[in-house]
Amino acid sequence: MSGSHSSGRKIAVVGSGAVGCYYGTLLARAGNSVHFLMRRDFAHVQAHGLEVRSQAGSFKLTPTHAHESTESIGPCDLVIIALKATDNRALLNLLPPLIHKQTLLLTLQNGLGNEAFLASHFGPDHVLGGLCFVCLNRTAPGVVEHYSQGRIALGEHERAPMARTRELIGLFQDAEIDCRLMEDLGLARWRKLVWNVPFNGLAIIGGGVDVSQILQSESLSLLARALMTEIIGIANALGYEIPLSYIEDQFAATNPMGPYKPSSLLDFLAQRPVEVEAIWGEAFRQGQAVGCQTPRLEMLYHLLKKLCL
Amino acid sequence: MSGSHSSGRKIAVVGSGAVGCYYGTLLARAGNSVHFLMRRDFAHVQAHGLEVRSQAGSFKLTPTHAHESTESIGPCDLVIIALKATDNRALLNLLPPLIHKQTLLLTLQNGLGNEAFLASHFGPDHVLGGLCFVCLNRTAPGVVEHYSQGRIALGEHERAPMARTRELIGLFQDAEIDCRLMEDLGLARWRKLVWNVPFNGLAIIGGGVDVSQILQSESLSLLARALMTEIIGIANALGYEIPLSYIEDQFAATNPMGPYKPSSLLDFLAQRPVEVEAIWGEAFRQGQAVGCQTPRLEMLYHLLKKLCL
Repeated sequence: MSGSHSSGRKIAVVGSGAVGCYYGTLLARAGNSVHFLMRRDFAHVQAHGLEVRSQAGSFKLTPTHAHESTESIGPCDLVIIALKATDNRALLNLLPPLIHKQTLLLTLQNGLGNEAFLASHFGPDHVLGGLCFVCLNRTAPGVVEHYSQGRIALGEHERAPMARTRELIGLFQDAEIDCRLMEDLGLARWRKLVWNVPFNGLAIIGGGVDVSQILQSESLSLLARALMTEIIGIANALGYEIPLSYIEDQFAATNPMGPYKPSSLLDFLAQRPVEVEAIWGEAFRQGQAVGCQTPRLEMLYHLLKKLCL
Repeated sequence: MSGSHSSGRKIAVVGSGAVGCYYGTLLARAGNSVHFLMRRDFAHVQAHGLEVRSQAGSFKLTPTHAHESTESIGPCDLVIIALKATDNRALLNLLPPLIHKQTLLLTLQNGLGNEAFLASHFGPDHVLGGLCFVCLNRTAPGVVEHYSQGRIALGEHERAPMARTRELIGLFQDAEIDCRLMEDLGLARWRKLVWNVPFNGLAIIGGGVDVSQILQSESLSLLARALMTEIIGIANALGYEIPLSYIEDQFAATNPMGPYKPSSLLDFLAQRPVEVEAIWGEAFRQGQAVGCQTPRLEMLYHLLKKLCL
């Protein structure tokens, strides 16, 4: 990244689900040249463009640069990776045509281990990570419904923020995306897991319930709190300071989401792969490695492993 | 109970599901006067009798004494209670017409707390309990399919076996039922919970799986073993000695059952009430009362409470 924020950048979005399409569309609207790698929605988006529907204002991106291969996109300044973590192996073939010496690889994927995967295959210097705090669903081909929030917390992989990190944040902010710098991306990932582990998991094994049903169920709320306590225990053992008061903050933040169905539940209900290893498996294994007792996480992980693709 | 085993007894079966019909039919075949309180299958059974289908030999009981009320049955020597524990409140009205001074109340119900319930309402002297080790399903009106096993372990409620206990066992044995005396019914109930808690529970929350699928799933087997360890921990804390080697015995005993669906799973799939409190709730509470940490049982209990009627 170089130059001022206002000049457009060439950006690739790899994994054009709800997250990729939402942020990509916002970045394109702000004048960047955004190229979407698409699979199932390619023909529809090429014909009709992308649409974001939101109470904060709906808009269409027409035409949309939709691609069926990364070869046809070519080298980019920024690659936003928003593919399911279960498909990470595909990145080994998808990414090389997009990468030049200065290309930033920004993973917006859920869970743990994605930055490490990119770093090991493409070099740690390229890699940044972002956490998305946003309620989105892809409701039809080329259509993303935005329900609430939208914030990205962004940081470098295993190193302190640099000038390029702040420039990248500026790029998102210029697109009217609430984007904040994370000094410690690892801490941010663990803080997010405190929510994702119980809410995404219980939504599935609790019988296909949305987050408001989890809040309303005495049984599921109790389990969510107990799971959060275990995740905080692992995070603390790994050196990330998260206070137990964070649990009630998360409950308070969940309340305004209403009947939101976490993305893992939608994947499960549609019989698509669920990111079981990136969210629950990796959290459990990192806890085991530092000697944490996490029987509830273990149980949730194994149930999901059995129930999900 | 008095007299020799061979003279027929008047027996009522309250709760004519698979267990009640199976044992009642065997007792009737042996010459006892067995009266079945029936609800949904009354008309069918009155017209066609009861049928037990088994590789060990199928047979029909025609005519069957089917009743719609316990008033029409009147006082009995023995009342076999095989109703779902979720319906225990109904016993307060159903049982009085069946009881005289010497009537034995034998609960063959699952889980904990059923003897205590009967003792508190009808007097402890009447109460015995039996555990059924049998794979049965009611597959059609008036039809019970018998898959394997059949043993009843029978004992007095909170006291040592007496002459009447042995006589009652003789009554079952005369009907070709493998019936054994339990010196300690409480111990027997906890031993049975070591199986019921994981297999009935995981069958439901594991996605509607039979016991062979639990054995074949690495994840579910691991959880079953961990849950068994917690149940044995509670039992031991309550003074019932169950060694940890009992876990592998239970796995070995489950293997020949094949694709058996535990009764709780059938109830769940048919949207009938599941005995969540008698099996998981009461086990959890008794563990809590003696200070046991049972996070997996707690999680299973709360998930079932949310998922089941």
